[in-house]
Amino acid sequence: MLSCLVGFISNKPNEGGIKLNAEHHIVWHSQTISAEQRLKLNGHRSCILWFTGLSGAGKSTLANHLEASLFLQGVRSVVLDGDNIRHGLNKDLGFSAEDRAENIRRISEVAKILKEAGLVVLVAAISPFRKDRALSKQVCGSHFYEVYVSCDINECIKRDPKGLYQKAIRGEIKNFTGISSPYEPPIQPDIILESDKKTADQLVEELISFLKVNHIIDEKHGAVFQLSQHEIG
Amino acid sequence: MLSCLVGFISNKPNEGGIKLNAEHHIVWHSQTISAEQRLKLNGHRSCILWFTGLSGAGKSTLANHLEASLFLQGVRSVVLDGDNIRHGLNKDLGFSAEDRAENIRRISEVAKILKEAGLVVLVAAISPFRKDRALSKQVCGSHFYEVYVSCDINECIKRDPKGLYQKAIRGEIKNFTGISSPYEPPIQPDIILESDKKTADQLVEELISFLKVNHIIDEKHGAVFQLSQHEIG
Repeated sequence: MLSCLVGFISNKPNEGGIKLNAEHHIVWHSQTISAEQRLKLNGHRSCILWFTGLSGAGKSTLANHLEASLFLQGVRSVVLDGDNIRHGLNKDLGFSAEDRAENIRRISEVAKILKEAGLVVLVAAISPFRKDRALSKQVCGSHFYEVYVSCDINECIKRDPKGLYQKAIRGEIKNFTGISSPYEPPIQPDIILESDKKTADQLVEELISFLKVNHIIDEKHGAVFQLSQHEIG
Repeated sequence: MLSCLVGFISNKPNEGGIKLNAEHHIVWHSQTISAEQRLKLNGHRSCILWFTGLSGAGKSTLANHLEASLFLQGVRSVVLDGDNIRHGLNKDLGFSAEDRAENIRRISEVAKILKEAGLVVLVAAISPFRKDRALSKQVCGSHFYEVYVSCDINECIKRDPKGLYQKAIRGEIKNFTGISSPYEPPIQPDIILESDKKTADQLVEELISFLKVNHIIDEKHGAVFQLSQHEIG
């Protein structure tokens, strides 16, 4: 049947990839399907675009618009929204510096799993501290891109799509980034999106160009095996 | 360009899906791409197969063999191996009942994210306690299937692929499932795989049939848009 199905409880999956967590005697199991094989199946590479910026800068909005555009090009993506993750995986965490660091660490580990599964991963998380983002880059490995969604804080306060800035200014929310907790802009982001100067359409086009230039998606078609809009419905 | 790109910082992505984590003022953002759209793009549904059983019963081996078989049928899957997750996301957790519960809770949240991204998710985790697996089912939502990898403990001790049973018997590993910590078999698993009576090939075929009967993959082709073995390489 399958050439890899050679006897039961073989050590095959571990070959070339054994790591041991000595303290707990935990053995690492290697991936069966390589990144190269997933690329051939999907018609595009996987990567992580890490959107960082102030609340209200447009991280989630841009990630979701990019996802819609990628989908029409047959590219498989997923949005990891920092807010959503705090409803589930990270619902035990608050907003102290320590909890923010753990929040970003866990999101990074999940982003890596999704990338290894072949997806274009769009992380939207304020991730205000440089050292936490540096850790993300380290955890996530190759094809990690820092996307700085740049927006003047006065514009964010004006937009205030969730009404959070007003609450933070009134002191009803503690440790709010930009008001009562610092935001450290990236020093060398891979791409800067000026959301207070350009439209979402323009910025999504910049992102698509970025993905093409970096050979994540195909220059002409996005995914090589492209579906018509009719087929997707 | 895209019909959904209607103005910047619109509230469109939130419509119909607003949830609020009141304590922390966190707003939920709905998915842009529906499960139905992902199904059309991929040619198969997504689901979670949760492999539970003793160490050495063959959970990881079967999950990896199933993944190889699915891949050749053009089905996108991912293996979430409990051991691997303890090297990354859950490296801060030990083996107390409390830490085991948190381990399973986090794996469940990640499995759900992967399922929502359109993948067939194969979780391989001892997950010895019924109440933790019940929580998994609750967290993961629809299309969650409990797969009991059944194997006599004496056979597991004989196999001992990682040499862990011998260490546990000598008392060098504490809280080892089946030796110094209980394993509670599922009462109503969705499928039972008797790994001490059948070969891996037979069990993978049973799993493929199960996925077909449950309309996760196509009756004839797996994924509708199937690649030839030649194309995948």
